[in-house]
Amino acid sequence: MTKLVEFIPNFSEGRRQEVIDQISEAAQGVPGAKLINVNVEPSYNRCVHTVVGDPEAVLEAGFRMCQKAVELIDMNHHKGEHPRIGAVDASPFIPLEDMTAKECVDLCNRLGERVAKELQVPVYLYEKAAKRPERVKLQNIRHPEYEGLLELIDKPEWAPDYGEAKMHPTAGAMPLGVRNPMVAFNISLNTSDVAIAKKIAQSFREAKGGYAEARAIGVYLEDRNICQVSCMINPQIVSLYRIIEMVRSEAKRYGLSIIGTDICGMVSQSALMDCCEYYMQLENFDRKAQILEELL
Amino acid sequence: MTKLVEFIPNFSEGRRQEVIDQISEAAQGVPGAKLINVNVEPSYNRCVHTVVGDPEAVLEAGFRMCQKAVELIDMNHHKGEHPRIGAVDASPFIPLEDMTAKECVDLCNRLGERVAKELQVPVYLYEKAAKRPERVKLQNIRHPEYEGLLELIDKPEWAPDYGEAKMHPTAGAMPLGVRNPMVAFNISLNTSDVAIAKKIAQSFREAKGGYAEARAIGVYLEDRNICQVSCMINPQIVSLYRIIEMVRSEAKRYGLSIIGTDICGMVSQSALMDCCEYYMQLENFDRKAQILEELL
Repeated sequence: MTKLVEFIPNFSEGRRQEVIDQISEAAQGVPGAKLINVNVEPSYNRCVHTVVGDPEAVLEAGFRMCQKAVELIDMNHHKGEHPRIGAVDASPFIPLEDMTAKECVDLCNRLGERVAKELQVPVYLYEKAAKRPERVKLQNIRHPEYEGLLELIDKPEWAPDYGEAKMHPTAGAMPLGVRNPMVAFNISLNTSDVAIAKKIAQSFREAKGGYAEARAIGVYLEDRNICQVSCMINPQIVSLYRIIEMVRSEAKRYGLSIIGTDICGMVSQSALMDCCEYYMQLENFDRKAQILEELL
Repeated sequence: MTKLVEFIPNFSEGRRQEVIDQISEAAQGVPGAKLINVNVEPSYNRCVHTVVGDPEAVLEAGFRMCQKAVELIDMNHHKGEHPRIGAVDASPFIPLEDMTAKECVDLCNRLGERVAKELQVPVYLYEKAAKRPERVKLQNIRHPEYEGLLELIDKPEWAPDYGEAKMHPTAGAMPLGVRNPMVAFNISLNTSDVAIAKKIAQSFREAKGGYAEARAIGVYLEDRNICQVSCMINPQIVSLYRIIEMVRSEAKRYGLSIIGTDICGMVSQSALMDCCEYYMQLENFDRKAQILEELL
């Protein structure tokens, strides 16, 4: 088994394509790390890069991207609808194959130390990498935004985890963390009544006593005149089929049915295979030995 | 896309492990061909090797295995419960990725010609490679068995497709063909009444007007005191979920349920993903772009 890690830095640039391209190029020169996706959000004025590969290679590619973003993005001229505190914003490492969260936290600390030292950007660690309990939630670090943090950073409670208590003159500060792999999963219902979708979402979100790490909201989709239960799930803890069947059973109470589902972005093969085996009622299936592609 | 082909020769040896090992070794020296499975059946006194890879490499590995089997197996001393006509028995090529049945037929003809010429074993082509309509069915070629074919081979209707009308003195004759990829799939029911399992099997087997290429029988499993619908399905034509749902709906009529399923041997990832997408009701899912492992 090869260790695999994912790194998904957010950069505060979603309009100047030449800047986004230079950040992408910075990620591409490291053997063992692969840039698998670049998502550009012009209205948020940010972009999200996804790099996957060997831990050391992803660390190096991650640093090079940060370096390029710090060089090219000036937060003094940045406007966008999404909360942010720096040129490199929320940047989580995610453990994939054969990798523990603890190993990701080590990687995260090494990157944070290097970014602070070599790029002079103060770093705040969040979620599983947090060193202070109040920094577990990313929103607690990001809520003052770039403009507010300029005033707050020299207060003791805002001391960075790496680097001096001083904003980088153009790149601000950087939130760096470790989180579990999450799947963005939507379940569509044959109703336009968003109140029902919201009630169903309550039935399994963690904040309401549901499944661990599960987030869920009910939303109305105007273009299709239907509602969705839109959720973020850690499929290593809760299988997607369990969410589907939970929504199906709650929806039945209102005489409603699931009319479709969709996955936004990436999902691991094992999360899909968990669903496949459940619904097919497969017994004694050996994924490594019986799936043809696994053997090649 | 790389072309991929599978070759599954049956050899008439299931007891002398050293012979089976030498056949396996013969397959292993060819770069681009991979021996992914060896299935030994002592009561049938035969073994089944599965080689997958690049067409030219699989052809070469296939020839080397045949050569070794012809050298080591003497049909004059072979006894076993399964019909057979030679040291190398039923040997199908199967088109996998980016490969047509027609291309497999070409490959099959090349191997047949080489086996006849270099090993002096007469070759009969079956299924999609058949040159005579009465040879499409493997059982028509194999029913006289080794002992019977010794008497028949010089009759005009038994003229081999490659080689002289003369059995090899120790290796007999070889059936060589091309077939579609099939999955051996069993569906277990909560009944010990095999008559019901047999009736359900009738509902979709091709021979009874069901799905194309689908074979199915009802069997009783003594050790579990249950019945199974045991089938062979070409998942490129009929998705496995369609078979499951067909069996579920037929079983309901008898008040029965599916209590499990199992896949014997190999299955392609796409056959499983078809089931996964059906049961999850996934919309607009892009397997190549959204499954993490596909991008690496």
